[in-house]
Amino acid sequence: MMTGQGHQACWCFHLCAVEALRMDSYLIQVDGHGDHAPVLDVHLKTNGNSISLGKVKGRKPRWAVRASEMSKKTFNPVRAIVDTMKVEPNPKKAVISLSLGDPTVFGNLPTNDEVTRAVKEVLDSGRYNGYAPSVGYQSCREAVAAYYSCPEAPLEAQDVILTSGCSQAIELALAVLANPGQNILVPRPGFSLYKTLALSMGIEVKLYNLLPEKSWEIDLEHLESLVDEKTACLIVNNPSNPCGSVFSRSHLQKILAVASRQCVPILADEIYGDMVFADCKYEPIATLSTNVPILSCGGLAKRWLVPGWRMGWILIHDRRDIFGNEIRDGLVRLSQRILGPCTIVQGALERILHRTPPEFYHNTLSILKSNADLCYAALSAIPGLQPVRPAGAMYLMVEIEMEHFPEFENDVEFTERLISEQSVFCLPATCFEYPNFFRVVITVPEEMMLEACSRIQEFCEMHYQGAEGAQDLECDK
Amino acid sequence: MMTGQGHQACWCFHLCAVEALRMDSYLIQVDGHGDHAPVLDVHLKTNGNSISLGKVKGRKPRWAVRASEMSKKTFNPVRAIVDTMKVEPNPKKAVISLSLGDPTVFGNLPTNDEVTRAVKEVLDSGRYNGYAPSVGYQSCREAVAAYYSCPEAPLEAQDVILTSGCSQAIELALAVLANPGQNILVPRPGFSLYKTLALSMGIEVKLYNLLPEKSWEIDLEHLESLVDEKTACLIVNNPSNPCGSVFSRSHLQKILAVASRQCVPILADEIYGDMVFADCKYEPIATLSTNVPILSCGGLAKRWLVPGWRMGWILIHDRRDIFGNEIRDGLVRLSQRILGPCTIVQGALERILHRTPPEFYHNTLSILKSNADLCYAALSAIPGLQPVRPAGAMYLMVEIEMEHFPEFENDVEFTERLISEQSVFCLPATCFEYPNFFRVVITVPEEMMLEACSRIQEFCEMHYQGAEGAQDLECDK
Repeated sequence: MMTGQGHQACWCFHLCAVEALRMDSYLIQVDGHGDHAPVLDVHLKTNGNSISLGKVKGRKPRWAVRASEMSKKTFNPVRAIVDTMKVEPNPKKAVISLSLGDPTVFGNLPTNDEVTRAVKEVLDSGRYNGYAPSVGYQSCREAVAAYYSCPEAPLEAQDVILTSGCSQAIELALAVLANPGQNILVPRPGFSLYKTLALSMGIEVKLYNLLPEKSWEIDLEHLESLVDEKTACLIVNNPSNPCGSVFSRSHLQKILAVASRQCVPILADEIYGDMVFADCKYEPIATLSTNVPILSCGGLAKRWLVPGWRMGWILIHDRRDIFGNEIRDGLVRLSQRILGPCTIVQGALERILHRTPPEFYHNTLSILKSNADLCYAALSAIPGLQPVRPAGAMYLMVEIEMEHFPEFENDVEFTERLISEQSVFCLPATCFEYPNFFRVVITVPEEMMLEACSRIQEFCEMHYQGAEGAQDLECDK
Repeated sequence: MMTGQGHQACWCFHLCAVEALRMDSYLIQVDGHGDHAPVLDVHLKTNGNSISLGKVKGRKPRWAVRASEMSKKTFNPVRAIVDTMKVEPNPKKAVISLSLGDPTVFGNLPTNDEVTRAVKEVLDSGRYNGYAPSVGYQSCREAVAAYYSCPEAPLEAQDVILTSGCSQAIELALAVLANPGQNILVPRPGFSLYKTLALSMGIEVKLYNLLPEKSWEIDLEHLESLVDEKTACLIVNNPSNPCGSVFSRSHLQKILAVASRQCVPILADEIYGDMVFADCKYEPIATLSTNVPILSCGGLAKRWLVPGWRMGWILIHDRRDIFGNEIRDGLVRLSQRILGPCTIVQGALERILHRTPPEFYHNTLSILKSNADLCYAALSAIPGLQPVRPAGAMYLMVEIEMEHFPEFENDVEFTERLISEQSVFCLPATCFEYPNFFRVVITVPEEMMLEACSRIQEFCEMHYQGAEGAQDLECDK
């Protein structure tokens, strides 16, 4: 054992000596015992002339490959929280996962036949196997422009950049608008990718509050107070993940008024665009803007139920020429890094957009609306929980009145125990920077939605402490 | 006019005054005439208390949205050169484009039926529409690992990261290995994307020479001389774009010896792997490495003739555990930014890799080899041109003996005139940092290859000046 150590020390010394030829000084740390490792700090002056420094300069004495700072700064809070959760579901109960924003996992929401048929036709044609322009085929950009164009917010092919999913759309939009050291305004609660991307690029994130008591409208005063000279853009996510909220026209106008007053461009995450329940209307924010320039990010993922296909887009709305060629050219240049989305999906886009029957969208939304109603009604009846009624998207947020669940420190512990006791998996809203809530995904089959709600009820009843009980427990501590 | 200026100056002053409240000092530049704009530098002390700085702080007085530094640093030299070329082809001759590294454009090299059938089956199954893990489905990673694993360089699923094309593979590999301020070693001539990506990330590019007289082997001494303590990785592109060269086993071993001596990891761009002519053998560099850690980037694009599908991968070879978990975890984290390649292609991967009939690969290569031979023979016979015989990939490089073409300043002018006179479009090798060469793409139909060569011959005969003639022209100047 000691011999081994001695050998290692000797080898270390050799490496340090080689290093020293380059550095003109070196530090030898000899393995010691306990906490007080003896450190010997030796400074050498080399004569230089006697050694070919040119040769030595290029030498790296040993392997030391480190992951880049950027890779270390790329951090997904959902993964970080979920991976550390002690999630052993109750073996006596089948797992019900209400955690993933993927509408395809249960098989109850397949995409439409027209969608797959369109891609199969493209495959048969053999005409879409080559490279497309990095911003997408011109004809496909035209198809998207035509689909989303309207008199209040007209679009042409040149206003559309096709991307590898909405994630890349958001990445490109952030990358073109913000420099390291600038900041962006991000909703709280909000989708975690904004922060993941921003931090990896050295962009600061400032969180503005959404108000659960006002159906998750933006706290406009708080929002405006966060703007400073380093604010590069405002992210508006409507309809919202994780809230399932949909902004009214008048609220969108107020958001635009803030952006206009403060001269901050908007990155609109509208991936859930048009996914709103019958009693509600979705308005793309660009249709209400008179001057604020907007990059609207969307894609096929949610509405067409094919998130894995990675077909996204940026719609450039800039009627006052504030973005100008600079932002457009920047987006084109950035798109050349990885060369756009899969061409067989691009080739199918026009047909997907124009031939998917309206019943398909209606059917999806009526399933979502029905599940939202069921879930909202069931959870509203549970003492200690306060769900917020959603109006669109695929989610519902539930407040946990933590004072009634004194056993649990926070939403992470609450949802952890919900897994271990009831095998129901919901994301703690700490994942969205919003503690003491959890998010429910409502894309599951109805019977699963009901079963999940009844297990959540059982769980809450088991752990709920009325005002008095909670005090008792407090006294026991 | 003067009134207008006065108004503007007044407005400027107002802005500066607002700014001054924040900065405690300001600079007023009054529009002047000519070069000597009078500058008035005023320093103010504000009492602060009397003004609500909080209110003022948030105000941005006007719209000024600028593209980010990163978007400006993202620069594709091919685009920059090609876009500035005055390319009006000769209207009397049909255009023959030998410029694009896309084997699908002429229709003579369709992908195999098994490849499209595999994707259609996946579409029919409906099982691959949801999100995959950001590094790819486990089963697909296994399929790639099994396909490329060999006793000298074994691979498991965890050694494979699926990416949105080989471009994203290279982007992730660079992003995990290098920090801004570090440098990477890149071949000259070489594929322009390395530089585009590196510069956009603030990574310095050091170009090492390939030697045309040695079939584009690396100038190893030059390579080694470039290594310094900031060298993050060495890019080895084999088979090569733009050279069409294929390194021998012994040359690869020498490259590995340099990397090993200097402790520099290798990023192997092997997208043309296995695309070598019958008289030559392709060896993945990882199969020869005993200690150098390697990220090998590849994909379906070239060998399976579907570049638009954007299916790439990184194979992690790290048998001495030098990358360790750090680089692996970094790659996983970076992959979460845009969430991997299209799932319907992922789902088809196993079948594509295992069921594509060997004849398909052989057929592609025999067409390429035949075109390479034709083109090499034809261009060799043209006075003033010196083609270098390729051994694989899809390209051939041709030296222009510029002294014999005194009309043209450089390869860009040469290829420009080749378009305007003969409607033949080849990329000037300035696009690959290698002036006085041009690159010929050899994926075209045979008759087009022959026609192109005969037009190039006509063009050269028209402009060639023998030693004497050239001198005459020199005297005329």
